[in-house]
Parts: sequence; structure tokens; C-alpha cells
Amino acid sequence: MKLMQFQIDDMIKSALNEDINYIDVTTDYLVDEQKIDTAKYVAKADGVLCGIDIALRVFTLLDEGATFEILIHDGERVKKGDIIAKITAHTRALLKGERTALNILQHMSGISTATAKCVELCKETRASVADTRKTLPGLRIFQKYAVTVGGGKNHRYNLSDCAMLKDTHLDAYGSITAAVNRLREQMGHTVKIEVEVSTLDELKEALEVGCEIIMLDNMSCDEMKKAVEITAGRAKLEASGNVTEQTIADIAATGVDIISLGALTHSVMAFDISMKIEK
Amino acid sequence: MKLMQFQIDDMIKSALNEDINYIDVTTDYLVDEQKIDTAKYVAKADGVLCGIDIALRVFTLLDEGATFEILIHDGERVKKGDIIAKITAHTRALLKGERTALNILQHMSGISTATAKCVELCKETRASVADTRKTLPGLRIFQKYAVTVGGGKNHRYNLSDCAMLKDTHLDAYGSITAAVNRLREQMGHTVKIEVEVSTLDELKEALEVGCEIIMLDNMSCDEMKKAVEITAGRAKLEASGNVTEQTIADIAATGVDIISLGALTHSVMAFDISMKIEK
Amino acid sequence: MKLMQFQIDDMIKSALNEDINYIDVTTDYLVDEQKIDTAKYVAKADGVLCGIDIALRVFTLLDEGATFEILIHDGERVKKGDIIAKITAHTRALLKGERTALNILQHMSGISTATAKCVELCKETRASVADTRKTLPGLRIFQKYAVTVGGGKNHRYNLSDCAMLKDTHLDAYGSITAAVNRLREQMGHTVKIEVEVSTLDELKEALEVGCEIIMLDNMSCDEMKKAVEITAGRAKLEASGNVTEQTIADIAATGVDIISLGALTHSVMAFDISMKIEK
Amino acid sequence: MKLMQFQIDDMIKSALNEDINYIDVTTDYLVDEQKIDTAKYVAKADGVLCGIDIALRVFTLLDEGATFEILIHDGERVKKGDIIAKITAHTRALLKGERTALNILQHMSGISTATAKCVELCKETRASVADTRKTLPGLRIFQKYAVTVGGGKNHRYNLSDCAMLKDTHLDAYGSITAAVNRLREQMGHTVKIEVEVSTLDELKEALEVGCEIIMLDNMSCDEMKKAVEITAGRAKLEASGNVTEQTIADIAATGVDIISLGALTHSVMAFDISMKIEK
Amino acid sequence: MKLMQFQIDDMIKSALNEDINYIDVTTDYLVDEQKIDTAKYVAKADGVLCGIDIALRVFTLLDEGATFEILIHDGERVKKGDIIAKITAHTRALLKGERTALNILQHMSGISTATAKCVELCKETRASVADTRKTLPGLRIFQKYAVTVGGGKNHRYNLSDCAMLKDTHLDAYGSITAAVNRLREQMGHTVKIEVEVSTLDELKEALEVGCEIIMLDNMSCDEMKKAVEITAGRAKLEASGNVTEQTIADIAATGVDIISLGALTHSVMAFDISMKIEK
Amino acid sequence: MKLMQFQIDDMIKSALNEDINYIDVTTDYLVDEQKIDTAKYVAKADGVLCGIDIALRVFTLLDEGATFEILIHDGERVKKGDIIAKITAHTRALLKGERTALNILQHMSGISTATAKCVELCKETRASVADTRKTLPGLRIFQKYAVTVGGGKNHRYNLSDCAMLKDTHLDAYGSITAAVNRLREQMGHTVKIEVEVSTLDELKEALEVGCEIIMLDNMSCDEMKKAVEITAGRAKLEASGNVTEQTIADIAATGVDIISLGALTHSVMAFDISMKIEK
Repeated sequence: MKLMQFQIDDMIKSALNEDINYIDVTTDYLVDEQKIDTAKYVAKADGVLCGIDIALRVFTLLDEGATFEILIHDGERVKKGDIIAKITAHTRALLKGERTALNILQHMSGISTATAKCVELCKETRASVADTRKTLPGLRIFQKYAVTVGGGKNHRYNLSDCAMLKDTHLDAYGSITAAVNRLREQMGHTVKIEVEVSTLDELKEALEVGCEIIMLDNMSCDEMKKAVEITAGRAKLEASGNVTEQTIADIAATGVDIISLGALTHSVMAFDISMKIEK
Repeated sequence: MKLMQFQIDDMIKSALNEDINYIDVTTDYLVDEQKIDTAKYVAKADGVLCGIDIALRVFTLLDEGATFEILIHDGERVKKGDIIAKITAHTRALLKGERTALNILQHMSGISTATAKCVELCKETRASVADTRKTLPGLRIFQKYAVTVGGGKNHRYNLSDCAMLKDTHLDAYGSITAAVNRLREQMGHTVKIEVEVSTLDELKEALEVGCEIIMLDNMSCDEMKKAVEITAGRAKLEASGNVTEQTIADIAATGVDIISLGALTHSVMAFDISMKIEK
Repeated sequence: MKLMQFQIDDMIKSALNEDINYIDVTTDYLVDEQKIDTAKYVAKADGVLCGIDIALRVFTLLDEGATFEILIHDGERVKKGDIIAKITAHTRALLKGERTALNILQHMSGISTATAKCVELCKETRASVADTRKTLPGLRIFQKYAVTVGGGKNHRYNLSDCAMLKDTHLDAYGSITAAVNRLREQMGHTVKIEVEVSTLDELKEALEVGCEIIMLDNMSCDEMKKAVEITAGRAKLEASGNVTEQTIADIAATGVDIISLGALTHSVMAFDISMKIEK
Repeated sequence: MKLMQFQIDDMIKSALNEDINYIDVTTDYLVDEQKIDTAKYVAKADGVLCGIDIALRVFTLLDEGATFEILIHDGERVKKGDIIAKITAHTRALLKGERTALNILQHMSGISTATAKCVELCKETRASVADTRKTLPGLRIFQKYAVTVGGGKNHRYNLSDCAMLKDTHLDAYGSITAAVNRLREQMGHTVKIEVEVSTLDELKEALEVGCEIIMLDNMSCDEMKKAVEITAGRAKLEASGNVTEQTIADIAATGVDIISLGALTHSVMAFDISMKIEK
Repeated sequence: MKLMQFQIDDMIKSALNEDINYIDVTTDYLVDEQKIDTAKYVAKADGVLCGIDIALRVFTLLDEGATFEILIHDGERVKKGDIIAKITAHTRALLKGERTALNILQHMSGISTATAKCVELCKETRASVADTRKTLPGLRIFQKYAVTVGGGKNHRYNLSDCAMLKDTHLDAYGSITAAVNRLREQMGHTVKIEVEVSTLDELKEALEVGCEIIMLDNMSCDEMKKAVEITAGRAKLEASGNVTEQTIADIAATGVDIISLGALTHSVMAFDISMKIEK
Repeated sequence: MKLMQFQIDDMIKSALNEDINYIDVTTDYLVDEQKIDTAKYVAKADGVLCGIDIALRVFTLLDEGATFEILIHDGERVKKGDIIAKITAHTRALLKGERTALNILQHMSGISTATAKCVELCKETRASVADTRKTLPGLRIFQKYAVTVGGGKNHRYNLSDCAMLKDTHLDAYGSITAAVNRLREQMGHTVKIEVEVSTLDELKEALEVGCEIIMLDNMSCDEMKKAVEITAGRAKLEASGNVTEQTIADIAATGVDIISLGALTHSVMAFDISMKIEK
């Protein structure tokens, strides 16, 4: 796992606090405090798993003595019916944590599964599939991590770690060239500059001033092919806008380096998994 | 707005901290600190808006002097091309807050729009559309609020405010009757009991013992019709499992009182909105 | 224990931070860092114990190696002079945690002891004893838990989980009937409605519209008896207002279902316990 | 007000979060969002008011436009029936904040009222009335502030700001003299040393070594009188243990300088106040 | 200001909580609550100012009505005796906030002043002066901002936004080339790679594989000159190790692009400023 | 260690969150997750060590299984080249925690080393060396602890635990005498009063009214000698202002009791330590 334990714990505690603001009125009144059970996670669809360690951590926070057997790990393919993991813990902890754990696991596996599909559609091309900053509040590290688990790449993490010039930024400077030069004067040397262009002329200007990454904003596939030719490897070209599972293969075929999709994180289909307590 | 200001502010600060862990390297170096602009939110699809006050709050947190003109409010229909709101603020604040505000607004409007579709499909029936606890970590109050804005109803908020008897809870007690009686002895008097049943016999037992709400778990429409007849208004019947936009009208037609859908909150399609700075 | 570990830990850390904002100037300078001792909690009054696991957790947070022998558990009767528990830990941890642990244990045991007295006074009647929302800031889960340990029931946890109609709410709707119907249209189906009435006519109206719980506000015992007759089991009746150890038995004898007392949580007498280090 | 605004706000937010974990199901569904009302706080007993600014802050956090008229301020005497303050705000804010505000105001006024009674009982003597560290978790600054509003004095705030030698600390050093000398060698020069003594011989030793404060632990009034004579102003003498409203005047008459009572903060009777919305 | 208001407020509240864990015993007991005064900040040395808006924010958090006249802004030169700003606020707020505000202002101005000195020593060369990750816990955004105010550049913010290959990372891959290629395969496209080299051979390998930034670790000036020649603009060269005010000019003269100094943030001399209340 | 574990953990988590806001792009992509290594801390200068337990805790928070061998403890002398400690942990944890741990250890050891130097310069005199409230935001407990480890004494921790009368406080009362008497009437009995004086006449007044501590503000050594004579042990005398390593011995020779230096905490030179992974 690349994430730090306490980053994970803080998110889980916040989720558990949402789900149990006092006690679990059903479980705490009906289930014996000493009772221990084993539960298993079962996949109800095919995909790529993500978030298993994080989901299981829910039970450890509820029951320090919880033990786990993980059969399928992050990044591995899972098929409908597969047992993903087994958890042995106090029954109360199993029931209190069930929904929180599944909410996390299903969301993250939904992202990794959708990413893997896009990556598959781009194979045999040079294009990598990347996420965006279109993430859900408080969940960025988990969503971006899930994209990588699905075989995708992370675009910039946030506004602090990569410059991205858009219309508004350019306005005040008259030209891409002026704006990029101004930025280079000011910024630290570890930060890359990406420029958003919507015409091939803008692309040429961006190449001229040596931009490292150029986003082709809502261009047609034909335009993108020309952009690839013009660029000739001098910068990374990123296709963005209107990318779907239907269009991604054609876009990848244009020769662009990166295809970024907001939908990977802003429109996630939960991956179906259920928890069952063994009798 | 039914949510409290500081609940909202905490979520927004956490989202802004994700998106700007130091400074905005593009905006802070290129845009004049004194510059002020007006931006507008424009809908790029048809739906029901949700989260506009919350989204605009992002700009107030970045610029105390930001002012707003809201043209479409929470719960109102919005059509592709509609201007939703105008924001006048320091350009730096507009650019720093743009993505965070849209991430919130698109997610919440996605939920209210999907809910409204389901509600529409159930009209002319007695069925109301309800959410579940299948929400994303840290976002429950925002997701549940968005469901109500779309015309849906909230199911229990969490494990603390309504009892829900499932298999595992029943196991230890031998029968629904025994478990419900035990709960009533123990629980506070303000808490309702819902029982999950998968057969009509279980339904009858639950009715006998006077359960207030009965969840029909993955029953066929025919079974649900029979359940409605048997129940004859003695309890609220909730249909759950395999509810989609395709099946919901038929389920509603069975006469159940509530149809609950995890997808309203666990599989949200962002509602497309863009922010443009006026020239 | 029905509360989650991290809910407890957060409260304890906040209490310890109040009591030690830097170091313990006496203990840290005088007591050898390696010294280990055994301390015991001794009851100095008779009552019902509550909070022992929470109090002992203080020492674990100060000394991971602390070990415990618990002789009297939550909900058990304790007599003056009884040894409640023994703690073996670094002497520094014992001395630093002593006051914080006692503050918690004495407060929670004060609540459970007072509750148990009220419950005892109502035995042989159908009345259960319930708490209210009149709790101290930040301590609600601990106070409500202590009420249950003393044999009481929890009233609604907060404003989110049960509707309670009072004068002001009714004003805008002209009648209990109109207000209740409006609420039912809007609210989720898992939420109960309680109506506060001060006359028998209001009671009848509330019964007519099918309210689940009716609060008899400051009624005389005679009025309450009549209310019980009129109600005839159609709703839960709750007596509220001017309930004391002197009046509670008479109120219970009227046949009401619930008697709620703010004093259980807003006017708590600490239960006297001391900690002694064994020589 | 001596407390800082953000110390207060954090406590209030925590209390409001307890009382409204999602929405106020009664108020948010029944009361018009635009409606504005005026409410008044009315005293239902005689005492000394404390916490009015803090209680009113609850409404500002719920409604930035709330306005107040304060008729009785912290530290002023209040009589049954007195109007304490008037609040004009959105009705929703008034109803959502009512209980939280009262919980704070009643607790703090309970402390100041009880303190004032003790202070009154000690007048004409040199004894001041002081609190202890026997406070409730998370509420120390509010409880200690309320003691001063009632005319009492604050004992040490916590373990970090004053040394207090008890049995256990002395054990390792063989004598008060050795322990005090060791402490003086180690500690900062701004910290006072208090020693707990239970015999007059110990008192003499403590005086000999120049302790600034000496606690007479559970001594009889006769012993305390002798202690006062022996001390002859060389140190502050503090009476502690078994202090009640019944015994405090006699203790004060012995000539001790300070009488400390845990009950001021660990066993608080809420001071009765109600909020009424004006028609 | 490039930092967000709530980032600043959180730091200030944490600092004020350190400095006032209850009340200000001197000020709250001696200074009239209504008294208002004007204070001025006076420089007691020459330098470059930084943190004035942040320091003044302390007073706004203590007194919403505080007003300011700022005479010298962040990044401007200040001379001994200059009045930097005037603050009008309640005297209690001035006295309670004085130390916290000065602690911030003196630390940040110390950083900007030291940075400006280094920048001055490098003028006429191509070298820019950069900070490192050698910052103090919790203060990174403030320290890095202060470096830019002094004319320096920010090196990578943290481990997440730029790759930096050191010995240990290289070990597992046998060569710079292998490690860099592996990283490029895995990482997002917005992240730059810096490689630390200690010989000219390593430099050549790093250039060959196209590294964007190369750190010359503890090289002599002669070696650095050779490195500059070999590199011929193909990568940014960063000098690191043993950089002091004595050596920096010579290092800059070698032609390197960046000189990074941990001392700018890990060994800060407070810049002397005092606050005086006007009579 | 005198600090509480969770005080330390909170600071470390905040520092790690600064240094890794998502993942460590270098380490997480290049270093095998299972790899374990041993690293050692090596001193690169002579001094007094401080913060070793805190620094090592960084690795435990990143890797629960980390083990340590500590060769030099807090307060012990360390010489250039000494191995301070060895850490065995996952290589990823070693690399992710390296900088954060060193930032803490170098800062704290810088303080203890500088303090020890001052203490050494005062030996053979009665003067102890004390810190001030001139600390860095969020780091006070760590800085003050480090001063004690270096042999220094802590001055008051903050504004809440010791009264300190300065000009402004005195203004409203006309005289030291009046102000001190007023304070004594109001304050708790556990708080000492320090008065800042700048003339011998003020000193005499402060002695007359029985102040426990008197700060000689920026007095010459001659004046201080006279102050010592006049005081004749009736109060603690504290020298403050313009204290440096050059002047401290002379000041100590005047016979003052305490010499306080802001520089110990506001102008800290990091103590040089490096971490090396063993091959």
C-alpha cells in the first residue's frame, strides 16, 4: 500500500462516525458482546479489486483482535462469485463495520475496474489513461490510488504541484509565450507546465516556448493526429474532453500520449460486493 | 438550506486542502492579486439542481468579499445552456475555487437529477423513492440532502437511529418474534424497527409482532403484490434489491410504500456544469 | 461496551490535554520514569458502576503496557469500600491519569446510580425511565450510555432522529393534525413523531392523527390517569416536567409508559470513588 | 469575556454536531426557511447568571444575522421570572439552537450560583472559595470561568502550572523537605509548590522548607485553627475535603485562606432557564 | 497573499491555544474589557519583511473589530526604526496576541531576510536560490512562502510532487538509467525527476537518460564548473551541500542553475521587531 | 519522556501530512513493498542530543513493526561521528520518514545543544538559564522540553500560568503597588507574579509589595549587581534582554537568579545529523 496508515484511519473514523453517531441500536441490543464470527466478502461481478486493505482496516478499528485472510489483493482480477477475503472478529464489529467497509471497497473497486477497461481499450497504442482533479471531496487520495491500481496514471494531484495554463491565465499576458516565460521566471524548477490549446497554431506556439505537456482541448481525432505529427515527440500530448468508453480507442489511435477522463473519479459505478457471515 | 453552515465549511475546507496543499502555482504567479472578475455557472445537461449554496460558499471561504446572483436554486429544474449563477470575486479566488465548487455541485446535482427521474417513474403510485446507507465516506449529509432535493425520501440516517433486523440478528433469537420482542424491551421508545423478510411467511410473522416497516428483500413483483395484499396497510412495505430505472415503475405498481436504491448515492453520475469567466 | 474505541479515545485525549498542556510538573520531576506501581479504585458510596472501561483506557493512552484487573463491571452494584479495579502501570502514568479517569468514572457512575434509583421507584409499574437532550456539551454519548447502564431508556438521541412537535412548530399549521400530516408527507418513513400536548383535547387530536408518542407536558397525576384511559394503548404516553425522586413513583402509578427526566444528565452528582496506590 | 472566541466556537460546534448530526427533522420540514422570530430567555429560579454570551453565540453560528438584547450579564444576580435576553433570528435557528444554548447556560449558571452561595457563606472571613481539577471532560475552561463569575477563585488550572505534592510523590524522597528541595532544583522558577499535609508536624515541616501553599487534608476545624496559628501568615493555607454548604462557614471561621470544593464543578445542579418564542 | 485564509487561521489558533490555554491572567484581570489602544510594530534591524498579513490576522481572531494600517508589505525592505504597521484594537486583544503575532512575523521575516541576502550574493549569475524540505513541523507553507518573498524559489514541496533519486533508490536497479526508466513507466506525466549525482560519470548517465534536474551533491566548485560544461543546458543543475553565505557566491559563479540551502528554513534567525502601545 | 504519546503523534502526523500529501512518488514506485533495511543516525557535530524517541516514533507511525536500538539518549553528549540509533523497518518507511524524523531531531538537538552551552557559561554562578514564550507556532512543548534536556529551566509556559506585569498593565493603575494588589485580589492563589522593572526605584517598589519574581529589563551589569544587593534574596531576579553567548557569563556573574533568552527557541541552529541505510 502506498498510502499511510493514519491517512486511512482518519477517513475510516469519519465514515464510522457518520454511520454510528451513538450506538448500533440493532446490533448492540441483540448480539452478544462476546460472540465471534467469520464473514467473507464475495464478488458479485467481474473486475479489478481495489481497497481491500483499507476496507479490512474498518474491522481492526472496531475490534483490535480482528484477523484476516486476503485471497484477492489490490490490482488483481476478480470474478463474480470469488471470495475476496475472510474476516474473523466479534460479530458486533462485523455488523457495525459491514456497510462502511463495503462503501469503501465498492467505490474504490468501481474506479479500478473502470480504469482497467479504459486501459485495455488503449493497449497497443502509446496512450496512457489518466485521472483528473474531478474527484469527490475528501476522497482524492483514495480515488487517485484506485486509478493507479486499475493501471491508469495520475495526472497532477492538485493546483500546487503542476502549472496548467488555461484561457483565463493567458488573457493577462497576451500570448502563451509571454505567460509561460513569466511562469518560468517565478516558479520553482521542479514544476512542469502544461498548456491547454484548442488550435494547432496554439500548439505550435506552446511547442516553440518548450512546454512539457500540451492538452488538446476537445479536438477531433483528425486534429489530434495532426497535433501528434507536428509535435513529433517534443512534448507530451494529452487528449481531454468527451472521452468515453466508446471514443477512447479512436482517440488512443491518434498517437497522443495521455488520455484524461474526469469520469474515472466523478462518475463512479460501485463494484458489487457482498459480505456474508458464515454459519 | 437544512444543513448547518459549519458542517458545510468543514467539508469545503477539507476539499480545498486537497486541491491546494500549498499555493496555486499557476494562478498565484500569473494573476494579479487585485484583479476581480465575474464568472457564471452554465448547465450542460437537463436535470434538477442541487448544492448551489454549498458550491458558492467555496468562493466566500477564498474571498470574503465574493458576491453572488443565484438564478436557479436547489430543487429547481435546469436545462442545458441555462445560467445557474454568477459569481463576482477576485480572479484568483475564482480560479482556485472553480474545481472544488464544481466537484461538489456536479455530484449533488447528479444525485438530485437521478432521484427526480426515479420519482417521476413512480408517480401515480403510492411508492416513494428512498436512499440507503450506501453513501461515500464523509459525504453522507450532502448525499442524503441531495436525495430530498430530488424529491426522494431519506431512509434511516445510520445505525443509531432505526433498528433493522437482518438474518444475522435473527439467528441468535430463533424467530423474528423473539428478536423483535427482545429489541423492544431494550431500545428507546423513539426508535422504529424494520425487519428484512424474504418470504411471505416471514412477512406474516413480522406483521403479527407489529413491525412498523418491513423490507421485502429481492422479491419478485408478483410476490410483492401478494405482500401488499397480506399487509393491508398494517406496516410500511419497502422494496429493495435490483431496483433500476428499468424496473422501478413495475415495482412501484405493486403497491409497496417505499423503494430504496443504493445507486442513488453509491453510483452517482456527475451532472455536467461548467464555469466560465466573463470577458 | 457499545461505544466505539475511537469515540472514547478522542474524549479522553481532549480531557488529558486539558489537564496536562505541557508536562506534569510534580510527577515528571519527582517520580522515576521506570517506576511501576499498582493502584486500586475504591468506592466511597453505594451505587451502580458505569464507565470503568473508559476510565481505565486513560491509563492505556498514557502507558501502552498498563494492565488491569476489573472486579466490578458496568451496570453492577457497588458498595462503599468495594475495590472496583486494580491498575498496574508506570507510576507516572498512574499519577498523570488519576484525575482524568476519576472525573469520567465519577460522572458516569453518578448518572447510572441516579437512574437506577428512579428505575427502582417505578418498578411494579409499566413506566420506563428515560433521559432527554439536556446533556452537557461533548458528553452526550457518555451520558446516554450511562443512563442505559443504570437501567433507563434513551429518549431520542438528537434533533435528527425523531420528530417532536412543540407549540412553535404547531403555530404555523393551525392544528396538530395539519402539522403531523405535513411532516408525514415530507419526512423519511423511519422517523417517529412525538407530539407534546398540554390538554386532553390535544391528546385526543394527537391520537386521532395516529401519533406514535405523546408527551404529557406538566400534567397533574389525575390528568395523566385520564390520559392513560383515553389512550388505551394506542400510543406511548410520556410524562415530562417536574419529575423528581419525590414525585416519580406517583407519576409511574398513573400508567404512563415513559417518564423522562432532564436531571439525569443536566444535574449529575458525582459518585465518590478514590484511587489509592498500593504500598 | 475572558475566553477567546474560537475556544467557545469549537465547543459549541461540537455540541451542535451532537444535537444535529444531519438535519432537524421537525423544524426543517415544518418551519418556513424565511420566518424570523424573537425569543426570550426567562429565569425560573434565583441565582447568578453565567454564560450568556456563550449561549447566544450558538444562534450566531446557526444564523449570522441573529441579533441580541442582553438584559442581565455574566455575574449579575437574576431572579425567577426575569427576562435575561432577547434573540431575534430565523425561527429555524432559534429552534435548532434552543437546547444547546440552554444546556450551556444552565450548566454555567448552575456553577456560578452555587459558587456565589459558598462565597456568601464565607464573607466576613479571610477565606476565598476555590475550584479544583474535578471538572468534566472538555469543559474545564467553561467551568473554571463560571467559578470566577460566581465570585470564586481558580485553583491551579492543571498538572502543568503548579506543583502539588501528595503522598505518592513524597514516598520516594523520605520527607517533604527532600521532595520540595528536589523540585526546586528541577522546576522553573514561575511555578509554585503546594504540599498536602494531614498532621501539624507535616505542616511545620512544610513551613520550614518554605512551601508557598499548604493543603490541610481532611483536618477537623480545631486542627485547622491550630494550623492557622502555627502558620502565622508564612504560607497560604487551603482547606480541602468534606466541604459542603453546611460545613463551609465553620471551616472559613478557622482562618484558612482558601477553601476548595470539587462539588462546584463535578456535581453541578443546572440553573433553570427557559426559552420562549414571542407571539 | 498566496496562502488561503483558513490555512493561516488554523496555524494561528493552534499558536494562540499554546499561549493561552485558559485565560491571560495578567491582562484579563488588570485591563478594562472596553479599553481600546493603538499599537505599532517597529523594526529593530534591516531586512525584508514577511508575514505581516498573517501576524495581523492574530488580532482579528482575538477582536473582530481590529483595524490596521500597513506601512510596509511582504517583500519590501525594512530598516531599523521603521514603523511596519499600526493596529487599533481592544487593549486585551493587543496584549494577548502580541507574542503570537511577533513569533510569526519574526520567524517569517527572518527567512525572507536571509533568503534575500543569498539572492543578492548570486546576482549577476544564472543561479537561483532555493529552499528544501528541511522545514519545521507544521510550518512548511509559511516557511516556503517566506522564501519566495525573499526572492528565492521553492524546491519540491514534498515527496508527492517531484521524484528525487538518491543512492538507496538506485541500489535496487543497478543504474540510474534503469531506475529512471522504471519511474517513467510508473509515474504520472506531470512529475519531474531529479537525480542526485556525486561524480561526473553519474552526471553523464543522468543526462543520457534525459533527467530534467540533476543535483550535484557536495561537489567542489571545479567539478561543478565541469558539470556545467558537460551539461550544456540539457538539464537544470542544482548545487547542494555546504552552502553558506561565505561559499554561495563562488558556487553561483560555477554556472549552476539552482543552489539549495536547508539553512534557509532549518536554522532561522528571528528578525527583530517589537510592538509598542502608543500612549 | 515527559511528553504524552498522543501529543507527539499529533505533531508527527501533521509533519508527515505536509511531506506526503498523497504518496512518495519516488519510493512507492521504486522500492519493493516487502524490502526491509537498517538505517543509522550519525552525528555530524558535537552537542547534546534531544528528541530521539520522538524522531523514532515517526517510523513506528509509518511501520508498526519498526524496531530500534538507541545508543545515545536525550540529554546525553554526542560527538561528531557517533552513531545515535539504529532503525530496522521497511525500506519504504525509512525513506518516507527520513526527512520528517531528521527535521524534528535536528531542531530539538539544536535547542538542547545551544542551551547546554549557555548553562556551561553560567556554571559556578547561581544563575540558571531559562527559555521564554518566543517559540515557534505549534512547537512550544517540543522546544520547551528541549531546553530542559539541555539543562535549562522553563520560564512560564504561557499567559495562563503566571502573571507578568509590563508597562501597559501598569499604566492603568498608576503604580506597581496598585497593580500587584489588584491582581492578588483577583487571581487564583497558585499563580506567581513577575514584574518587569527598568530602574532600581521600580525594583524597590516591587520588592516592597512582595513580588515573587522581578525581571530586570535591559539593565547594565552594574545596575544588575546593585539590584542583587538591594534584593538580598527577597525575590528571584531575572535578567532579560541582549543576552548572547558573548554576554551571558558577565550577566551571570552579577548574581541574578535567572537569565532568560528568546534565542534558545526563536533562533535555533539545526544540529547536524544524517541518516544512512546500511548496505
